[in-house]
Amino acid sequence: MRQEELVKLVDELTVEEKVDQLLQLSADFYTKKNEEMTGPLTDLGLTEENIKQAGSTLGLSGAQEAIRVQKEYMNKHRLGIPTLMMADIIHGFRTIFPIPLGLGSSWSLEAAEKMAQISALEASVSGLHVTFSPMVDLVRDPRWGRVMESTGEDAYLNGEFAKALVRGYQGEDLKSDTDRVAACVKHFAAYGAPAGGRDYNTVDMSERQLRESYLPSYKAAIDAGAKLVMTSFNTVDGIPATGNEWLFREILREQFGFGGVVISDWGAVKELIAHGVAGDEKKAAELAIKAGVDIEMMTTCYAHYLKELIEEEVVEEKLLNEAVLRILELKNDLGLFENPHRGADADREKEVILSTLHRKQAREIAAKSIVLLENNGVLPLSMNQKVAVVGPGADSQDILGAWSWQGKMDEAVSLLEGMQAKSDHIISAEMPCDYFELSEDMISCAVKATSDAEVIVLALGEQEWMSGEAASRSDICLPKEQIRLFKLLKDTGKPIIVTLYNGRPLDISELDGAAAIVEAWFPGTEGGNALSDVLYGDVNPSGRLSMSFPENVGQVPIYYNVDNTGRPYEENPDEKYVSKYLDVSNYARYPFGYGLSYSEVIYSNLQLDKEVISEEEAIEVTVEVENRGDYLVTETVQLYIRDLVGEVVRPVKELIDFKQVQLESGEKQVVTFAISEKQLRYTHRNMNFSSDNGDFEVMVGPNSIELQSKCFELKKIRG
Amino acid sequence: MRQEELVKLVDELTVEEKVDQLLQLSADFYTKKNEEMTGPLTDLGLTEENIKQAGSTLGLSGAQEAIRVQKEYMNKHRLGIPTLMMADIIHGFRTIFPIPLGLGSSWSLEAAEKMAQISALEASVSGLHVTFSPMVDLVRDPRWGRVMESTGEDAYLNGEFAKALVRGYQGEDLKSDTDRVAACVKHFAAYGAPAGGRDYNTVDMSERQLRESYLPSYKAAIDAGAKLVMTSFNTVDGIPATGNEWLFREILREQFGFGGVVISDWGAVKELIAHGVAGDEKKAAELAIKAGVDIEMMTTCYAHYLKELIEEEVVEEKLLNEAVLRILELKNDLGLFENPHRGADADREKEVILSTLHRKQAREIAAKSIVLLENNGVLPLSMNQKVAVVGPGADSQDILGAWSWQGKMDEAVSLLEGMQAKSDHIISAEMPCDYFELSEDMISCAVKATSDAEVIVLALGEQEWMSGEAASRSDICLPKEQIRLFKLLKDTGKPIIVTLYNGRPLDISELDGAAAIVEAWFPGTEGGNALSDVLYGDVNPSGRLSMSFPENVGQVPIYYNVDNTGRPYEENPDEKYVSKYLDVSNYARYPFGYGLSYSEVIYSNLQLDKEVISEEEAIEVTVEVENRGDYLVTETVQLYIRDLVGEVVRPVKELIDFKQVQLESGEKQVVTFAISEKQLRYTHRNMNFSSDNGDFEVMVGPNSIELQSKCFELKKIRG
Repeated sequence: MRQEELVKLVDELTVEEKVDQLLQLSADFYTKKNEEMTGPLTDLGLTEENIKQAGSTLGLSGAQEAIRVQKEYMNKHRLGIPTLMMADIIHGFRTIFPIPLGLGSSWSLEAAEKMAQISALEASVSGLHVTFSPMVDLVRDPRWGRVMESTGEDAYLNGEFAKALVRGYQGEDLKSDTDRVAACVKHFAAYGAPAGGRDYNTVDMSERQLRESYLPSYKAAIDAGAKLVMTSFNTVDGIPATGNEWLFREILREQFGFGGVVISDWGAVKELIAHGVAGDEKKAAELAIKAGVDIEMMTTCYAHYLKELIEEEVVEEKLLNEAVLRILELKNDLGLFENPHRGADADREKEVILSTLHRKQAREIAAKSIVLLENNGVLPLSMNQKVAVVGPGADSQDILGAWSWQGKMDEAVSLLEGMQAKSDHIISAEMPCDYFELSEDMISCAVKATSDAEVIVLALGEQEWMSGEAASRSDICLPKEQIRLFKLLKDTGKPIIVTLYNGRPLDISELDGAAAIVEAWFPGTEGGNALSDVLYGDVNPSGRLSMSFPENVGQVPIYYNVDNTGRPYEENPDEKYVSKYLDVSNYARYPFGYGLSYSEVIYSNLQLDKEVISEEEAIEVTVEVENRGDYLVTETVQLYIRDLVGEVVRPVKELIDFKQVQLESGEKQVVTFAISEKQLRYTHRNMNFSSDNGDFEVMVGPNSIELQSKCFELKKIRG
Repeated sequence: MRQEELVKLVDELTVEEKVDQLLQLSADFYTKKNEEMTGPLTDLGLTEENIKQAGSTLGLSGAQEAIRVQKEYMNKHRLGIPTLMMADIIHGFRTIFPIPLGLGSSWSLEAAEKMAQISALEASVSGLHVTFSPMVDLVRDPRWGRVMESTGEDAYLNGEFAKALVRGYQGEDLKSDTDRVAACVKHFAAYGAPAGGRDYNTVDMSERQLRESYLPSYKAAIDAGAKLVMTSFNTVDGIPATGNEWLFREILREQFGFGGVVISDWGAVKELIAHGVAGDEKKAAELAIKAGVDIEMMTTCYAHYLKELIEEEVVEEKLLNEAVLRILELKNDLGLFENPHRGADADREKEVILSTLHRKQAREIAAKSIVLLENNGVLPLSMNQKVAVVGPGADSQDILGAWSWQGKMDEAVSLLEGMQAKSDHIISAEMPCDYFELSEDMISCAVKATSDAEVIVLALGEQEWMSGEAASRSDICLPKEQIRLFKLLKDTGKPIIVTLYNGRPLDISELDGAAAIVEAWFPGTEGGNALSDVLYGDVNPSGRLSMSFPENVGQVPIYYNVDNTGRPYEENPDEKYVSKYLDVSNYARYPFGYGLSYSEVIYSNLQLDKEVISEEEAIEVTVEVENRGDYLVTETVQLYIRDLVGEVVRPVKELIDFKQVQLESGEKQVVTFAISEKQLRYTHRNMNFSSDNGDFEVMVGPNSIELQSKCFELKKIRG
């Protein structure tokens, strides 16, 4: 449909029909029997008319059902406008990939794009049009359960992943490529910074912090073409995002130039009442529409009051028309007017969903996300070693992680299964997957199983319900019983390889003495295979943490790119009057960017091709990277910068680029970066984004701590 | 001296002499021998000339010495201008009172004023003119070591204490009342909110948060007439306070109308370099003078570069003149031109310092600061009970707390001493005051000592060095050895009364099973007597926490006046999708305002005299408070308010008033408050401070949780 036709279509709609375009209802209203939905209908105060006209649905899937619903819906709709089908497809549809925090730790943008593309394919053949992904919220507090859904603590890295994921979901041309879905970037803004790491809690930060650290990754997704933006539950400067005009009109629409659809998070419009900024649903509707929220998810403030607000001239009808036009534009961008069923295809569904190819790709991506935290040489295992595989995670299929809506645990490959597929020397201990209660029987069975083993693989961690939405923990240690088991096994004197499934950085100080620690996150459907690939060295681990692991929860928030203080610790850690704790260092246990491999990689000869640059040229940074080990290595070479003197305090380092290179055993490569003035800009006192003349430190290395450095000067021609 | 004369005096000074007025040097330069100070002089790049002219000194004391130094100084100064003598007198000079966090827990403004008055008297007879107190930083993170120096987590309560302390230090007329000293409110601004509770760390918050929560207590001290303001070490909106023009020129000078002296914190001007906002000392000097810092403490950026900056016209000489005038005005306000030795008096020094009267007052104030956290009826003790007093704090004199410069541990009364003074039935266990290492000998000695006892008093806690400046802890539990001792004693089956000395809210979840827990803070010189007064019921405990005690460090930050969320926990704690943790409640273990007494006090019949008020009238709130116990009670009746709907999210409750009443056994009183429109104002979207029409909830009770409530409406005549 052409734009003029869309505008005309808006004109043809009655106010009621327009308001209903803004309503999003759960799929149940279309898939369940009428009598089952009478209750919810009454609860929401909706009529059959609303159902007929609601602009979009949430959580419908299955090609056959999607086609049926769309047909029926369009038949009932006065003007035959198709509905939009949306859902949360976060890290895979049926083929589940690692949780985003794991994906972030792959530092592989290709992997992210591939994951998104496969997710889009499986979702679109099942009839879906929109996914509520990518979630690009910057996270610095591992207590927050939803860190599992973020790619981590760095604005630049999150932005790169945001772009890759949007590309993967949406492809080049959404209309013609019906194997893709529209992406919805979330949660605008700063949902990842709830006070105390407690989900839905108040967020408070300076506008500078918001602009510097939190907004860039949303901006990256928008620049990459994300079609939708979701509001966050939290406040921004004291006003809930969903009613925050400044945030959506001034920042998102004007400054970022976003022209797509804004959708509320689940129930967030009505929650303006609970927040105490609206006294009733009518006021909530007024605040949300004025802020620029186009679609109200799962509550009905618009449906009940928007017409009245327009009639009373509290809200201009123009706002409604603009919202409806954006929704119709989205439907049109997806080609729904011409092709209302889009990719929905029951035959292809059978063919592509959880296909062998998808499983293979999930396995590869999961392996890339695994981070080797410790290794005294016990890894990789060899095929003929006798290995006992014990612990609550040993045979667990609870490895998909939160937000795996269509994923099925029983389709997941456990670690035991993965290892048994490789080796005939696996000893297992019939051990139930209980992460908290380990009976004496279970424990003695585990210990017994290790008696003939040369090496112990102990699978510990969290269960799915312990992270994700509404799953914050004040204590980020492993459950006590798991530590007890670890200590008992340690007493056997045999080397223990601890593998971890978890949705957040943990305090694993109690695992001191493990021969190796392998962070596998929630690796998804092919998790056990991928983890076995790493344990046996079929894949040389290349994951690097995208979020710091603290020594203890008392260090939180801990992240690598902190602002410099006036009494820096790093230079004088033993001095009393420096910024530090009495009882723990300022360093993360495992810092951002950290991860081991089975090879030793040496960095040397950092060079800058100039000592001074202007805004019209770039400086070339080169470093030699050599694989001194026996394994093929995927090395993530990281480039950090520090602005030595700023108008406002600058971070001690900031990631501005990275490259992944493959190095054969013994191979040496020169890795090259270019730095230009654009990368040196920051938010000044007056919120201007610009650079200052002066000295900068360039740092290159395998993680955010082990860095080589050189300095250069920026001297702009135009001052 | 008249103002015109001061202005004239500024004119008569050379630029060098003016710059030196801005220099503050340690007392050593005046009290130590010349040859001892040659090193420091060289290190600082100072000349004899600078020493002769430096406008103020830090840390000099003793009447005789002060008089000698002042005489010599004035003789050397070309124009005979006297020097200013400043020091950190935080909770007493030689007679040490409870740490400010304890004082805050007294909720007694009289006690605060008295403490400040006595401190001022002892300090001024010793020759001091200025104290770097009150510290009124709002604190919400018990990891921060310096919470001990704050009166707590509430803006209103801190503001009331700020005023009382300024009154106590400065009296009615500073010039004529030479027993007083000038007060310096600190640390402007928001020093109490370092990230991760790590001292000197970055502070980041919205301007709204700064205005709502952090600025009011400084404002209160300024309104009460505090003569000086000290800069804080931290950043405010990315710019270190000491170089923050907006903060000092716009907020402090223009908006708060502060006309007094601004002094940097120790070395903070030079730290602008470490912060990375100045490349060198010259730039640091420029930033600080432009921001409005009058006195540079302990570094020499002004001394070296201010003249040059003025000559180069980078800095206007006017700024220097203004700073000098303010310093001279302060000297004049203190009457130093006429009376350069002020209160310094070696005879009175002997008479008043640590006098019997001051000890008595310190004992009374310390008793008021003690908070009874738990009591199963074991307290108060009776005189003839056999009581074993054990634990590392039992005979400890390390009970003064940080910032007790002139306080002497050996003048402090230990708990054992205090109890032995009351009862002949005290059993002690020769136990060294080690808070971390308890040998088996020590432990068995302690256990043995309890064998004949009916009751055990176990004195646990922190030592002085564990809180205060540069003393942050990531772990806020009691040291493990202390818990081990507690558990061993618990096994005896005898009731255990735990007393605590500490400088911060602790996680004391491991003390479950104690018959009573008595929070004594660092109670000061008379600590052991005061604590015994409470244990034996000579004083009925009346302290109420001014800072929440968390369940664990993972709940931090936890404070009572949190902003409301969109998914409130309080109404549906068992619901999954509310703002909460999986493993701990949202409530503090002991909330703000909480404290027990030996009586039961019943609140009833909360009444409002109107249902609607305008901005021209007040609503009268009454509540009946009845002492149903056998002891005289000092009851702190607390009044909280909630703005039910705001333009921005409002806190779930806010303290706006409190009254302390004395109730005899069986007595009932009606306590009355008045609420007017002024108390209902808050910082709106556009930073306007005003009230909204609408409903408000009034809550009254003995702490921030156990509250009765009623609602009223604000309906302003002028809209």
